[in-house]
Amino acid sequence: MAKVEYPEEVLALVTQLKRLPGVGSRSAERIAIYLLQHKKATPLDLATALQSCDAKVSDCETCGFFTGASGCAVCDDRGRDVTTLCVVEQPTDVLPIERSGVFQGMYHCLGGRLSPLDNVRPEDLRIGGLVRRVRDAGVREIIIATASDVEGEATANYLVEILEPYECSVTRLAQGLPAGGGLEFADELTLTRAFEGRRSF
Amino acid sequence: MAKVEYPEEVLALVTQLKRLPGVGSRSAERIAIYLLQHKKATPLDLATALQSCDAKVSDCETCGFFTGASGCAVCDDRGRDVTTLCVVEQPTDVLPIERSGVFQGMYHCLGGRLSPLDNVRPEDLRIGGLVRRVRDAGVREIIIATASDVEGEATANYLVEILEPYECSVTRLAQGLPAGGGLEFADELTLTRAFEGRRSF
Repeated sequence: MAKVEYPEEVLALVTQLKRLPGVGSRSAERIAIYLLQHKKATPLDLATALQSCDAKVSDCETCGFFTGASGCAVCDDRGRDVTTLCVVEQPTDVLPIERSGVFQGMYHCLGGRLSPLDNVRPEDLRIGGLVRRVRDAGVREIIIATASDVEGEATANYLVEILEPYECSVTRLAQGLPAGGGLEFADELTLTRAFEGRRSF
Repeated sequence: MAKVEYPEEVLALVTQLKRLPGVGSRSAERIAIYLLQHKKATPLDLATALQSCDAKVSDCETCGFFTGASGCAVCDDRGRDVTTLCVVEQPTDVLPIERSGVFQGMYHCLGGRLSPLDNVRPEDLRIGGLVRRVRDAGVREIIIATASDVEGEATANYLVEILEPYECSVTRLAQGLPAGGGLEFADELTLTRAFEGRRSF
């Protein structure tokens, strides 16, 4: 008597699902069974969406944001302020800024942050392209919006150095207390930064 | 200035991922971005696995268990005891029983349970096929392994009635304390069933 298992096609699907972030063995099996059994499941639509993303979505050659068949939603928008450039680590950092509505300029996604430990060097990031944009595209202010941790800071400092020769101001996002956050939840470094960056009324 | 969003291909993928059980808006976005960005992501392999499942996996015509291109792992196994039939609600109930190793007979998956509230009637379940198997295939014992809740019990009682005319014993899985479970965790009904089903040493 052989061991009964799901058919190999189902096991292959479970293996693929298990590789997704936040999906463990049990969730993967549960999702696979849902896709096989549930009347409202649309496995072929999911397959098509995956293939369409793979075929049509790439990084914008200019800014590094995700670009589909219809072009880059940032670079192709003629209504934006081309003199201001916000430098972020990842294309996923663009949407939170957009949702806040505070920024109307262009973006530049580095594709990561400098990290000697993970072997990420300047030439692994989209830094050459940034320098070219600053040099050629009439940028007047560069806002560096890398993370406020050690590697994000190191990346920001490196960019300041690299951009020094060019005639544009380089700024960094303010650090301090998050909106709505009481002092009791702030860590020491955040408090230090909030004191250092204090402003007069 | 238009609202910046992900390309429509990415949004379509997020929509599809959000439909999976246990995947909310944020996980769907996270998974989509992983599939787009991560070096180890294999979106096309996932698409292929989905299509292969859709094309090749179906319910076994005899027992209702999942069957792939290579046939039914239960029905095609000549080493099993064909005189004993375990009736379960769902094909997913087969694997826990198989993993326990306690049962070597055949299975019959009903495809659900009787539920007047959800409008599931006997003709919606694989009951006709069960009767045919009992009549024609020399089954000597039928073990009913539907759930021990109200609908599972109702389904079991209905099956007992339907199977009455046939010369085979119909049994039901024992109810009582789960292995390793102390009395303090047992609910009243479980305790009642454990007392009712007590056995002498």
